Amino acid sequence: MKETRKGERLSRSTAAARIAPAPIFVLVDPQMGENIGAAARAMLNFGVSGLRLVRPRDGWPNEKASAMASGASIVIDGARVFDTVDEAIADCGYVLATTARRRELSLPVIPADGAAVELRKKIDAGARCAVLFGGERNGLLSDDVANADAVLSIPVNPAFASLNLAQAALVVAYEWSKTAAAALDDPMAEEPAAERAALTGLVDLLEAALDERGYFFPEEKGPAMRRNLRAAFSRAGFTDGEVRTLFGVVKTLTRPSG
Amino acid sequence: MKETRKGERLSRSTAAARIAPAPIFVLVDPQMGENIGAAARAMLNFGVSGLRLVRPRDGWPNEKASAMASGASIVIDGARVFDTVDEAIADCGYVLATTARRRELSLPVIPADGAAVELRKKIDAGARCAVLFGGERNGLLSDDVANADAVLSIPVNPAFASLNLAQAALVVAYEWSKTAAAALDDPMAEEPAAERAALTGLVDLLEAALDERGYFFPEEKGPAMRRNLRAAFSRAGFTDGEVRTLFGVVKTLTRPSG
Repeated sequence: MKETRKGERLSRSTAAARIAPAPIFVLVDPQMGENIGAAARAMLNFGVSGLRLVRPRDGWPNEKASAMASGASIVIDGARVFDTVDEAIADCGYVLATTARRRELSLPVIPADGAAVELRKKIDAGARCAVLFGGERNGLLSDDVANADAVLSIPVNPAFASLNLAQAALVVAYEWSKTAAAALDDPMAEEPAAERAALTGLVDLLEAALDERGYFFPEEKGPAMRRNLRAAFSRAGFTDGEVRTLFGVVKTLTRPSG
Repeated sequence: MKETRKGERLSRSTAAARIAPAPIFVLVDPQMGENIGAAARAMLNFGVSGLRLVRPRDGWPNEKASAMASGASIVIDGARVFDTVDEAIADCGYVLATTARRRELSLPVIPADGAAVELRKKIDAGARCAVLFGGERNGLLSDDVANADAVLSIPVNPAFASLNLAQAALVVAYEWSKTAAAALDDPMAEEPAAERAALTGLVDLLEAALDERGYFFPEEKGPAMRRNLRAAFSRAGFTDGEVRTLFGVVKTLTRPSG
């Protein structure tokens, strides 16, 4: 078992202190360093930093991977290298194999979102989890998939299925991040709609101004016209600030111009 | 308004026949052709083929975009080019702006998964929908975001937020494709929102009337006041009938009373 001792230490101290537990991404037979770097960036965008490589074609460390990963060096520097999938997942309690193609294996197939929920449950229960990704050329071999607890599927357009390694890593990391409670409460909360009384005041003012100008005509259509106007404003979800703005707008419009 | 006539025809015949209705992806100020091509590939993996470009830096068509998109040429060939965001979304009834940064605008912020559900509802109700993506350098400008009904947010790791254009497109297209499987039956089918051009006409009329009456004062606050006004109307989801009603309302209010 080869591994980068320095990187390992870094991932235990700096990274582990800063980054919450997450599944480890295992790239099996990856070829181009650029793709490993791109996968590292994709992962870190969604808080996944544990990377393991099985038989990287061009050896390790890889300058192209480091260059492409710029900014995500915490992932690249902490990567560990293994000779076999078995070794790479030896310390893991739950393993998913990412595939696009149908397999003859009788493993459960879980879509990415459901798989992320499963990973969250296992990790919350204290298990170390891994997600396997195949190389650019052949994807995962059946023997590698057989090592997994389940298959993680990303259903793509059957007429154009060309998800690359970094894109597959992005989708899985993204789904993982969605399961985090922290990611779920949006810091950019929506501003609430104004209270109904403020809105009613606005529509009353508007109706009065329109009434003065003979808008509700012919008379028999008046009630429906008023109702529709009120419905449009009710449904719009204006905020307090917007209702105040619209008061000013109506008052301004009813002034003579120039 | 510039557009590639040939591409347009292609996207109406071949693509439309093969590909189910989906939101249109609008890339605003995209820079590198490679990134446009990568976005096209990301989109088509998840069945999204409608692409519009606003002010592509290196012109259009773009050889690098075509080369990078290889296999996804249906997206590149069908792309239409516009001078402004307004023109690009003129025929759309519901528009989302993808951003990572916090905005001062009072638009609702919807995470990508919820946004995909909204898009599905609007499209099922017959509205043409668009999702705006900013360019590599600056993302979307506040003025562009103000044209949207809501902000689509992709919550990334605050310590490493470097989602690129193709990755953002991938996440949105992926979430969109998931809603197809989820067969959303919405018992209360909504009336579709008016096309953007009608709404823009209404807000233009309103702004002109307010301008004549010295509403946008003091001058330095004018741009923000205009933006907020536009945002309030963009977000309201007025139907065609309501937009017509509001035209009448504004015209009536600007008449002298009595």
